[in-house]
Amino acid sequence: MGIVLRGGTVVTAADVYQADVRIEGERIVALGHEIKQPDDQVINVDGCFLFPGGIDPHTHFDLPTGDISTSDDFYSGTRAALLGGTTTILDYATQFKGESLKIGLANWHKKAQGKCYVDYGFHMAITDWNDLVAQEMTALVQREGVSSFKVYMAYKNVLQMDDGALLQALRQAGECGGLVCVHCENGDVVYDLVQKARQERKTAPQYHPLTRPPEVEAEATARVITLAHIAGAPVYIVHLTCNGALQAVIEAKLRGYEVYAETCPQYLLLDDSYYCAEGFNGAKYVISPPLRPVYNQALLWSGLKTGILETVATDHCAFNYKGQKDLGLEDFSKIPNGAPGVETRMGLLYTYGVQTGKLSLNEFVALTSTNAAKLFGLFPRKGTIAPGSDADLVVWDPRVSSVITAETLHQQADYTPFEGFKQQGQAVRIFLRGNQVCQDGKLIQELPTGSYLFRKPFLRRKGDKSV
Amino acid sequence: MGIVLRGGTVVTAADVYQADVRIEGERIVALGHEIKQPDDQVINVDGCFLFPGGIDPHTHFDLPTGDISTSDDFYSGTRAALLGGTTTILDYATQFKGESLKIGLANWHKKAQGKCYVDYGFHMAITDWNDLVAQEMTALVQREGVSSFKVYMAYKNVLQMDDGALLQALRQAGECGGLVCVHCENGDVVYDLVQKARQERKTAPQYHPLTRPPEVEAEATARVITLAHIAGAPVYIVHLTCNGALQAVIEAKLRGYEVYAETCPQYLLLDDSYYCAEGFNGAKYVISPPLRPVYNQALLWSGLKTGILETVATDHCAFNYKGQKDLGLEDFSKIPNGAPGVETRMGLLYTYGVQTGKLSLNEFVALTSTNAAKLFGLFPRKGTIAPGSDADLVVWDPRVSSVITAETLHQQADYTPFEGFKQQGQAVRIFLRGNQVCQDGKLIQELPTGSYLFRKPFLRRKGDKSV
Amino acid sequence: MGIVLRGGTVVTAADVYQADVRIEGERIVALGHEIKQPDDQVINVDGCFLFPGGIDPHTHFDLPTGDISTSDDFYSGTRAALLGGTTTILDYATQFKGESLKIGLANWHKKAQGKCYVDYGFHMAITDWNDLVAQEMTALVQREGVSSFKVYMAYKNVLQMDDGALLQALRQAGECGGLVCVHCENGDVVYDLVQKARQERKTAPQYHPLTRPPEVEAEATARVITLAHIAGAPVYIVHLTCNGALQAVIEAKLRGYEVYAETCPQYLLLDDSYYCAEGFNGAKYVISPPLRPVYNQALLWSGLKTGILETVATDHCAFNYKGQKDLGLEDFSKIPNGAPGVETRMGLLYTYGVQTGKLSLNEFVALTSTNAAKLFGLFPRKGTIAPGSDADLVVWDPRVSSVITAETLHQQADYTPFEGFKQQGQAVRIFLRGNQVCQDGKLIQELPTGSYLFRKPFLRRKGDKSV
Amino acid sequence: MGIVLRGGTVVTAADVYQADVRIEGERIVALGHEIKQPDDQVINVDGCFLFPGGIDPHTHFDLPTGDISTSDDFYSGTRAALLGGTTTILDYATQFKGESLKIGLANWHKKAQGKCYVDYGFHMAITDWNDLVAQEMTALVQREGVSSFKVYMAYKNVLQMDDGALLQALRQAGECGGLVCVHCENGDVVYDLVQKARQERKTAPQYHPLTRPPEVEAEATARVITLAHIAGAPVYIVHLTCNGALQAVIEAKLRGYEVYAETCPQYLLLDDSYYCAEGFNGAKYVISPPLRPVYNQALLWSGLKTGILETVATDHCAFNYKGQKDLGLEDFSKIPNGAPGVETRMGLLYTYGVQTGKLSLNEFVALTSTNAAKLFGLFPRKGTIAPGSDADLVVWDPRVSSVITAETLHQQADYTPFEGFKQQGQAVRIFLRGNQVCQDGKLIQELPTGSYLFRKPFLRRKGDKSV
Repeated sequence: MGIVLRGGTVVTAADVYQADVRIEGERIVALGHEIKQPDDQVINVDGCFLFPGGIDPHTHFDLPTGDISTSDDFYSGTRAALLGGTTTILDYATQFKGESLKIGLANWHKKAQGKCYVDYGFHMAITDWNDLVAQEMTALVQREGVSSFKVYMAYKNVLQMDDGALLQALRQAGECGGLVCVHCENGDVVYDLVQKARQERKTAPQYHPLTRPPEVEAEATARVITLAHIAGAPVYIVHLTCNGALQAVIEAKLRGYEVYAETCPQYLLLDDSYYCAEGFNGAKYVISPPLRPVYNQALLWSGLKTGILETVATDHCAFNYKGQKDLGLEDFSKIPNGAPGVETRMGLLYTYGVQTGKLSLNEFVALTSTNAAKLFGLFPRKGTIAPGSDADLVVWDPRVSSVITAETLHQQADYTPFEGFKQQGQAVRIFLRGNQVCQDGKLIQELPTGSYLFRKPFLRRKGDKSV
Repeated sequence: MGIVLRGGTVVTAADVYQADVRIEGERIVALGHEIKQPDDQVINVDGCFLFPGGIDPHTHFDLPTGDISTSDDFYSGTRAALLGGTTTILDYATQFKGESLKIGLANWHKKAQGKCYVDYGFHMAITDWNDLVAQEMTALVQREGVSSFKVYMAYKNVLQMDDGALLQALRQAGECGGLVCVHCENGDVVYDLVQKARQERKTAPQYHPLTRPPEVEAEATARVITLAHIAGAPVYIVHLTCNGALQAVIEAKLRGYEVYAETCPQYLLLDDSYYCAEGFNGAKYVISPPLRPVYNQALLWSGLKTGILETVATDHCAFNYKGQKDLGLEDFSKIPNGAPGVETRMGLLYTYGVQTGKLSLNEFVALTSTNAAKLFGLFPRKGTIAPGSDADLVVWDPRVSSVITAETLHQQADYTPFEGFKQQGQAVRIFLRGNQVCQDGKLIQELPTGSYLFRKPFLRRKGDKSV
Repeated sequence: MGIVLRGGTVVTAADVYQADVRIEGERIVALGHEIKQPDDQVINVDGCFLFPGGIDPHTHFDLPTGDISTSDDFYSGTRAALLGGTTTILDYATQFKGESLKIGLANWHKKAQGKCYVDYGFHMAITDWNDLVAQEMTALVQREGVSSFKVYMAYKNVLQMDDGALLQALRQAGECGGLVCVHCENGDVVYDLVQKARQERKTAPQYHPLTRPPEVEAEATARVITLAHIAGAPVYIVHLTCNGALQAVIEAKLRGYEVYAETCPQYLLLDDSYYCAEGFNGAKYVISPPLRPVYNQALLWSGLKTGILETVATDHCAFNYKGQKDLGLEDFSKIPNGAPGVETRMGLLYTYGVQTGKLSLNEFVALTSTNAAKLFGLFPRKGTIAPGSDADLVVWDPRVSSVITAETLHQQADYTPFEGFKQQGQAVRIFLRGNQVCQDGKLIQELPTGSYLFRKPFLRRKGDKSV
Repeated sequence: MGIVLRGGTVVTAADVYQADVRIEGERIVALGHEIKQPDDQVINVDGCFLFPGGIDPHTHFDLPTGDISTSDDFYSGTRAALLGGTTTILDYATQFKGESLKIGLANWHKKAQGKCYVDYGFHMAITDWNDLVAQEMTALVQREGVSSFKVYMAYKNVLQMDDGALLQALRQAGECGGLVCVHCENGDVVYDLVQKARQERKTAPQYHPLTRPPEVEAEATARVITLAHIAGAPVYIVHLTCNGALQAVIEAKLRGYEVYAETCPQYLLLDDSYYCAEGFNGAKYVISPPLRPVYNQALLWSGLKTGILETVATDHCAFNYKGQKDLGLEDFSKIPNGAPGVETRMGLLYTYGVQTGKLSLNEFVALTSTNAAKLFGLFPRKGTIAPGSDADLVVWDPRVSSVITAETLHQQADYTPFEGFKQQGQAVRIFLRGNQVCQDGKLIQELPTGSYLFRKPFLRRKGDKSV
C-alpha cells in the first residue's frame, strides 16, 4: 500500500511538471500518470508545489560557547527546522582542544540521539590539528559517515587554526574523500581590532561589524582558496557575505578550482544598519561574519542566480536576547555570536527569491536542497524528487501568506532577526521518509523520527563519479 | 498500450536514477517502478543511459551563400542529426536584403516541410532592418512560433547590421518576447583585414584566422552586451570561441544582465593549428569565427562547467571539400565559411566532456538539451525526461566505442573536421515523440516524421514565469 | 643681457628645488646658484613656485557648429588661456565633409594667424576618410608640423567615422608618426536614444546625460583600443569621464598597448546633478560626454595619481548661455555642446589637486604641461624648466586666494561652469618665450605674440628615441 | 673652485637635455650654459649621459644566516655597488629574536662604519614584536634617521611575524612616519611544502621553486595590502616577482591605497628554467622568492613601464657557490638563500630596459634612483640632478659594450647569476658627493668615503608635503 500525492506540481533542480507522486514505504517509487496502485491512499495537493525536503547544511544545536549553550538543542532546533520545510540538517560537531575527533563526534551523537525531528548528519569541526587527527579524518569518512570537516580561520586562541595546519587538513581531506568547510575571517586581525575597540571604550553592538570588516573575510577567503589549490583539495566556504569574498570564489571557479560556497538569508536580506537598532537591540544581529553594507545583497543574489554560490544555509546558532545576548551589555565582544534562522529559510528564499523573480523555482530547489545533497554525500537519497529517493517532500501552497514573528515560531529563542518579514507560501504538508509529519504548520507526529545519515565521501570533480 | 523502457538510468539536468520510463503515444507518462500497464511493450535498455533527445539550436541547412548552397539540406541534415542523437534542431531562416521576414520565413518552411527527420523550429535572421520588420518581429513571436532572431555584426555589405539597427532590434525583441541571437565579430575590421591580406597576396587558408582575430570577436561581444543592456533586452551570443568574449559574458552576468552564450564542439576540441594542415586541407576548418589558439579550449570548458555558457550547438553549415571549399583555392576569402557537425555533437561532448570528468552527466544533458529548450521556448515539452514531456529519448550505451570518420557519417559532406576522433558511447535506440526511429545507428523509419515546433515567447527573468 | 628669476622654487615633473632661473632671449639657459651674469636683470620671485607654462592640448576656438560659432575665437580664447597660466594650446582644426585636410588646416591657420596670445599648434580632425586623406596625413606630419589627428566615434551623420575608416586612419597614423585622438562615444546609440527621447517629448537638459550614458563611452573606448591594437598604432583618448572607460585604458596599458588618455576639470569636479539646476541652467553643463555620477570623480583622481591618465585638458568650447545655449530651450538636442574652461584649468587643478593632497607638485606639472609636450611632439622645447627649453614660465604665488566668477574671467562667454569655486594660488607673472607677458592677472603686452608650433612626429615606444 | 662637467646629456626622471653641470664641494650648484666660474676645472663628458647616482634600496651585506655570513661585507659590497654605478645603498639591519631594535641597529652601524664606498642607510628588520619595539620604531624614525622597517611573512620560526603583529607594526609605522617593507610569502605554507619535499626525498635545487610557488607570494602580497589598509598605513612590497602579486598591487593602487613595490633584475631577466642547470648549478639561483616561469617577465616590465612598480633593487645577498651554496648539496633547503647583484643592476637595466625600448631614459632614472630617494626620505638630496642635490653622478658612456662575468666583477662572490649577459654602456666616471671616485671601471680613491644617511620620515600622500 502506498500513497499517491495528486494534483501538485513537482519541482526539481531542473524540472517543473504536473504529475502524481507515488510513495511506498520510505521511498518515492513513481512519478507520472496512471501510477496509482489499487490500495494506495490518494492525497490531494491541488495547486501546490512539491519540493524536495529542505536541507540546511549549517546548524549549531546544543553548542556550548563559554559558560552558556545555544538556546536550541536538537529537539527544539530540528522541530523548528521541520516546521519550516527542512527535513535534513547537517550540524557542526566540534572537537574541542585536547579532544580526539572520535570523542567530539561521540559527544554530538549523544546530544542528537533520539531527539531529532528531521534526518541529520554531522560535519566535524577540527580545532586541534595533529597527526592522530589526520588519521581520524580518514576513519570518519570511511567508517562514520562523516565526509565533511570544518576549520576556523577566526576565533583566535579558541577555534582558530594556523595556515600550516589548515593546509594539512585540506590535503588530508582531499586524499580521503572529505570536504573542508571553512569559516573565513582573519582571526588575528579581528582579535587586534576588538582589543583596540575595547581599549578605546567602544563597547556598543555597532562596533561588532567595525571590528570584523569585509576585508578580513575577503582576505581569508582568497587565502584558503590558495591553500586548497596548493593542497590539491576541494574547499567549501561557509556563510559568504560580501563582494570581496565572492570575487575570490569567481576567480577560483574560472581557473577550474573546486571551490564551493554558501550564503545565508540574513546576508541576503539584512544589512549593517541593523546594528544601530535602538538600545541594545543591535545585539540580536551580532553574528560572525557580521551583516554587511546593503549593496552586497544584490551581488549575493547574483551569485545565487549564476551558480557561483551553491547553497543557502542558516548558520542557525540561537541565543535568547534576554539572558544570553545581554551578557554583552557592557562589552560587545561578550555578546554570544549567532542568531536563529533554521525555521525561516525556506519561506524567506521562496518569498524574496522566487516571488520577486530573482530565482526560478528550479534554482530555489537547487539552492535549498539539491546542491547540499550533492556536495555532502546525500544525493540522490536526499535532495530531489525521483524514483528511489527518500520521500522527503514539502507540499508548498503558494497561495498562503503570513508574517514572520518570534511568537509563532517553534524555535527556542525569544526573537527572530526577520521579525515582521512577510512570507508568501507555506508548507501545508511535510513528509519525512514517506511519513507525513506535519500538516498546516503543526506536527502530527509528536515523537521525533529523524535518523542519523551516514554520508558518502565527497566525489572529486575529476572522474566525476556522480553517476 | 504503451512502451516501457526498462533497466536504464534516467539522466536529466539535475538527476541520475534507475527507473522504468513509460511512454504512451507521443509523451512520457510515468517514471519509476511498478508503472507498467498490462498491455505495454517492454524494451530492455539494461546498462544504458536515457538522455533527453539532443537539441541543436544552431544549424544552417539548405542555405544559399553566393552561387552555392550548403551541401546538407533539411533531408540529409536532419537525418544526420537524428542518427547522432539529436531530435530537435533550430535552423536559421534568413531574410535576405529587400525581403520581408514573412517571405524569408515562408522560404524556409518550404525548404523544410516534409523533409525533416527531427522536430524543427526556426530562428529568423534579420539583415534588413526597418519599421515594418520591427512589426513583423512581434507578429512572428505571437503568431508564427518564432521567438528568436539573429543579427550579424559581421559580413559587411551582406548580412551586417549597424549598431543603431541592432539596438532597435534588441529593444523590439525585448518588448515582444523575442530573444536576439548575435554573431559577434566586428565586420568592418574583418573586411579591412581581408582586403589588406588580399592586397598583400596572402591567399592561403591560414590567413583566414589572421583576418578574424579573437579581438574582433571579444570587442563585438562586449559591444552587443552593452547595447542589450541599454535596450533593456536579453541577448544570446552564438558560437563564442575565445577568452575575451567569455570575460565579457562573465562580467555581464555578474552585473545581473540577461546574457546567454553558446559554444560549439569545434572550439572545444580543435585549434588554429589546423589551418596549417598540408596543402589546402586548412580550408576544411574555414569557419567564422575561426578556430582559436589552443589555450582557449580550457577556458571554454570552464565556461561550460560553471554555467557561464548555456549551450553547445554545432553551427552546422556543411560544404564539400571538393567542389565547394576549393572555390577558394586561389583566395581564402572565397572559401565558403562553415563545416559540418550536427551528427557528432552528442558523441564528442559525451566522450571529451563526461568521460574525461570535465562535465557531469547532468551538465551534459543541460548543455546538449535542457538549456536550449528553456531558452528557446520549448521547455518542458522538449529538453527533459519528465511526465508530460515529448518522448524524445536517446538510449545511450556507454560501452560501445568507435572512431569518427566521414565515411560512416550520414551527413552529405565529404569530410568531417573530427576525422579520427574516438567516440565512447553510442545512441543504440532513439525515440522521437514516442516512436523508435533508429536502432544501432540505423534509421528504422525511412520516412521523415519531424514536425515544425511552434515555440513560446522568451520568458524574461524578472517575474521568471517559467512555472 | 638676460633675466634672472631669484628666490623661487622650481617645479618640474620630477623635481622641486630652490634655484635661480636664468633666461636669455627666448630660452632658459641656466638653473642654480651663482649663475647671474653682470648685465642681467634680477626679478625677485620669493615664495613662489616656478611652473613650466601650462599646455592645454584640447581647445575649440572659433569653431562653427551649425549656424553659430563658439563664443571664443583665437584672440579671446588664447588671452584667457594665458591669464590662467597656459602658454601653449593645441586646437582642433577640422576637415569638414568634402574638404581636403589641406583646406581644413589652411582655414584654421587663417583663424589663428596673428591673434594668439600663446603659442599654438593644431591637431587635425578628420571627418571624411579616403585614400587622398590618408596621403595628406603623412604630408601633414612631415611638412606641416601637425602630428596628431582626431576622429569622432560620435555625432552620427556629421563627424562620426565608421570602424573601417577609423582602423585605416589609425594604421596610417601609426606608420607616418601621427597620434590619433579619439572622441569615444557610440554615435549610433546616442542618435537612437536622442531620437527616442524627442519622440517621448523629453526635452529638458537633464535628458542630455540620459541619452549619452557612460556605457556608450566605455564601449567606444574599449572598441577603439582594440582597433588601435589591431592597427599596431598608438591612440589617445580625449576627455575620458567614467570608470568603464578608465578600466579599458588600464587593461590596455597592462597588456603593453600604447594607449594614452586625457580628462578635464569638469569631470573631476562637477557631476550629473548639475543638469537638474533650476530652470534651464542645466544647459550650461551640456557637454559631450556629459558630466557623470559623482562616484566617478574619485576614480578619475586615482587615474591621475597612478599615471593611467596622462593629461588634464579643458575641451574649451565656449557658448554664451544667452543667445547660444538657449537655442535648445525647447529641445535639449539643440543646445550647442560645450563649455568654457581654458582659463580655470591650472588654478582648479592646483587647488583641488595639490592643495588637497591628491596630487604632488610634480604630478601637477606633469599633468598640466610635461606629458602633453611629450605626447604631442613639443618636448623638451615646451613642458619643462630646463636649460635649452623655451622660457615659458608661470610664477605661481600659492599665498593668494580668490573665487572664480565669470565676471572677472577674460574668456568671451557669459558664464563659467565653476562659478563660485575657490582658487588657491595665482599666476603673478607669466613669461612666454622669455618675455614677461602678464603681471598680477593682467596683460602687460597688449599685442598677441604667440607663434605657431611646428610639432615633431609622435615617438613610438618601441625604440623610444625620446633621447 | 668647482668642477664643470661639459658636453654631457643630463637625464632626470622627467628631463633629458644637454647642459654643463657645475659642482661645488659636495653639491651640484648649477646646470646650463655660461655657468663656469673662473677657477673651475672642466671635465669633458662628450657623448655621455649624466645619471643621478644609482640607489639600491635592498642589500644584505655582512648578514649572518645560521653558521655562515654573506660573502660580501660592507667593504666589498659597497665597492661593487659603486663600480656598478650605485652611490647609495640601503641595507637591512636586523633585530634578531630577543634583541631590541637599538641593539640591532648598533650592530649594523658597527658592521658598516668606515667600510663603505657609497653613502648608506638602514632599514630596520623587525623579527620580535612587542610594546617596547613599537616605541623603538618611533625613536628610530625621529632620532636615528631610520624611517623604514621590514617584516617577513616567510621564514617560519626564524624571521616570520604573525598577522596580528604585522598589523600592529604597520599601524605604528603609519603613525610615526615609518614605511614598512614586507617580504611576502606565506611562511606556513612554504614550511609545510619544504618538509613534505624532504620527506619525499626531493632534495635537488629544482625543488626550491616548487616549494615556494607564486601563489604563496600572491596570497601574502594581497594579505599584507589588506592589513595595511586596515591599519591605515602605507606599505612597500619588496622583491615582487609574479603576476598574481602584481595584480594585487594594481588593484590596491586603483583603490587609492598607498602601496609601493619593488622588483629586481633577476626576476626581469632570469626564469625558473635556471633551476634545472646541470649538476648542482641550480643552487646559484636559490633565492626567495624564487625565479618564476618566464611569462612573468613581460608583466613585470609592464609594471615598470606603467609605474605600478616603483623601484628596481637587487636584494644583493651573496654567497659563494663553493663553500657556501654547496652546504645544500644533499638538501636544497640548506642552500643559503640569496645571490649577488649590486654591481650589475644599472648596466642590466640600461641594456635590457633602455636599449630595447622597454623603458625611456627618464623611467630608467626614476626606477634606479629617484623613486627610491623619494620613498625612503632621501629626496632631493639624493635621486636627482638638480641645484642643491648631492653631486652623486654617473657619467655613462653608451658606446662601450662588455660582457658580464664573475671574473671581472668586484663583488666577493665566485659567480654571478648574469654570467655571459651583454652590457651596453658603462659608468666611465663616478662622483660621490662631488668627488670623482671611479674612472673607467676602477677606483681612484682607494679609501672608503661613504657616509651614513640620516633619512627623513616617510611623507604620507594625504597632504603630500613633498614640497
